[in-house]
Amino acid sequence: MGKGGITYPDGFSASALYCGIKGEKREDISLIYSETPCVAAGTFTTNQFKSYSLLWTLKNIRKPVNAVLVTSGNANTCNGIENYRYTELIASELAHILKIKPSSVLMGSTGIIGKPLPYEKVISALPELVKTLSPENHTLAARGIMTTDRVPKEFQIATDIKGHHKEVFIGGMTKGAGMINPCMATMLAFITTDAVIEREALQSALKEAVEESFNMVNVDNDTSTNDMVVCLANGRAGNKKIEKGSYDYENFLSSLKITCMELAKMIASDGEGATKLIEVVVKGGWCLKDAKRVAKRIVGSNLFKSAVYGNYPNWGRVLAAAGSVNAKIDVKKTEVSLCGIKVYNSGPTKYDEEKLHRLMNDSDKITVEVDIKKGPFSATAWGCDLTEDYVRINKE
Amino acid sequence: MGKGGITYPDGFSASALYCGIKGEKREDISLIYSETPCVAAGTFTTNQFKSYSLLWTLKNIRKPVNAVLVTSGNANTCNGIENYRYTELIASELAHILKIKPSSVLMGSTGIIGKPLPYEKVISALPELVKTLSPENHTLAARGIMTTDRVPKEFQIATDIKGHHKEVFIGGMTKGAGMINPCMATMLAFITTDAVIEREALQSALKEAVEESFNMVNVDNDTSTNDMVVCLANGRAGNKKIEKGSYDYENFLSSLKITCMELAKMIASDGEGATKLIEVVVKGGWCLKDAKRVAKRIVGSNLFKSAVYGNYPNWGRVLAAAGSVNAKIDVKKTEVSLCGIKVYNSGPTKYDEEKLHRLMNDSDKITVEVDIKKGPFSATAWGCDLTEDYVRINKE
Repeated sequence: MGKGGITYPDGFSASALYCGIKGEKREDISLIYSETPCVAAGTFTTNQFKSYSLLWTLKNIRKPVNAVLVTSGNANTCNGIENYRYTELIASELAHILKIKPSSVLMGSTGIIGKPLPYEKVISALPELVKTLSPENHTLAARGIMTTDRVPKEFQIATDIKGHHKEVFIGGMTKGAGMINPCMATMLAFITTDAVIEREALQSALKEAVEESFNMVNVDNDTSTNDMVVCLANGRAGNKKIEKGSYDYENFLSSLKITCMELAKMIASDGEGATKLIEVVVKGGWCLKDAKRVAKRIVGSNLFKSAVYGNYPNWGRVLAAAGSVNAKIDVKKTEVSLCGIKVYNSGPTKYDEEKLHRLMNDSDKITVEVDIKKGPFSATAWGCDLTEDYVRINKE
Repeated sequence: MGKGGITYPDGFSASALYCGIKGEKREDISLIYSETPCVAAGTFTTNQFKSYSLLWTLKNIRKPVNAVLVTSGNANTCNGIENYRYTELIASELAHILKIKPSSVLMGSTGIIGKPLPYEKVISALPELVKTLSPENHTLAARGIMTTDRVPKEFQIATDIKGHHKEVFIGGMTKGAGMINPCMATMLAFITTDAVIEREALQSALKEAVEESFNMVNVDNDTSTNDMVVCLANGRAGNKKIEKGSYDYENFLSSLKITCMELAKMIASDGEGATKLIEVVVKGGWCLKDAKRVAKRIVGSNLFKSAVYGNYPNWGRVLAAAGSVNAKIDVKKTEVSLCGIKVYNSGPTKYDEEKLHRLMNDSDKITVEVDIKKGPFSATAWGCDLTEDYVRINKE
């Protein structure tokens, strides 16, 4: 296996195992660990009902962090206040084994809402989880956070910190599938880096990267109670500390953005029941917000998502979705392309419908380009088609 | 048959026939007619891309109206500006036959976006349509506006105008099914009354009634380009003119609300692919807007809609949807009931899951009650479950 994903940067190890939260025997608890304490940054769901694991992380994210523990199969949300105590108990127990403070353990959860957290099962798994920590286990850890995901999702990248002839590394893993909506940090994602960076700079870079990536993904218009993106920086690269506004910061930010975007696209491709990735590029926005709103609305339209599933080039649904947004649109000049073929240009254009249908049928990724002709701003959003399988997965 | 629906009030007649817009041989053009000129009120889609039929109606709704012509199978939207000329042509031709002004003809359309309106077919159908006008044809006219609807939707009610010992009648028909979303006047609905009423009072009553009915329906989060609710009052009841703020106005408003709500519920029940009506009642709103927002979000959650389809009492998805709205919610005190059974009360409650599952399975209507514990405001929203059939219908 070697290093990769979240163990790609120096000094990170990972592990995962089955402790009994999930009904079927699949990894359901993952651990990320750095002996060197990390500065941590995070973005969290805007949902008012928040997971107790998330609340614990919110409380401790500004302190030095060594470990992130993630459980899957149980959301640890709306399941009664006693579960916050269980969450503290788990953190204390893990801290005790790792010989760190409880506040150095962050936690995340994903799964069913409203069921008591089987904390004894979690606690009994901790010694084995710590014993099996290894840089080799990154994909195993990515498996451990999966719920209805079909594949583990990892990405890694190296960045030159030019001023100091130093390379720093960034790695990440994520899970998605259902209850994915653009309101905020959407789903679980964990990103590691060995960069030396100010906490404030890390938080600001993460926020900007998340805005353009995870927050532009929409699988089903539902916003989870558990969404979080957490980024840990352990400083093992030994570069000169990255400060906000510096050249190095911009460089680091650009790699962090690539990481977040690639992970976000993996989530969209693997949306519940999805057969295709949809990428919507909106140009001509009067402001960035307008471009984003239109892109998100199109990618979230059930009607258009169903049409993509049927390889049906229904640009009327693209326009209807665009027009329903509170954003400036020049309805008389708007242009739409599907898979690179111009289908609307101030009015219906002539194109080979049969050919476009075939093209859609043969593509795993459907690109929609809409020019709303009001200004210079662009935005991209990602989603997936709506299929019978989405309904089948979620009716049970 | 007798009188009913839109011909229930005195002086209205209707007709419908197949003129060749739809692929299959089903009525695709409907006419509503009153010899006595009517005052008309309307509420229209907020979508920025608007049907040419709707634009024509918008232009003429303040003038005296005798007829409403509705085509189904073609949206007359985003199909090129020349189609506005065709729309004018149709109105002129119908006006000529009826010996009225073109501005006395309102028009509505529903169907596929982006295809040229086959206006010659429409025009050749007009003489027969006028010839067959009859109070008996109300259900035929309700059929003529259907697209993916499974049943025609009509309602009628009588109101006492107490001050004058007079009864006035209200009737209506509507169509729904897909691209139904809460942003505005949603879908097509036509309401008739023989009341004598000021235009301003009619407009204000209609707006208020639509807000609490059609605007609280959500089938699939998509807002159509063609939505309109039009109400015609021909004054044949001979009551003293209803003015805004009067006792008679309140009485009329209350019957108009019932009409709109019953028609709106018919749309939700008959949502594309739907097997169940979902009614979400939100109590405890700090303001009306908050209660409405929460109710609409819950009824629009794909995850919850899928759960209802599977008769799966997943109240976690109700809370997750509620919490994702920008509204004041007391997350520590929130209560949820499903089909009258309390399932969440500041935390999970004990209830018979098997019994609730059976109850959901046996009900055509699923009631969700959520108390967000912040104030005295309530709101009700209607929707339907999300099924494989929705996807099947819309992928083609």
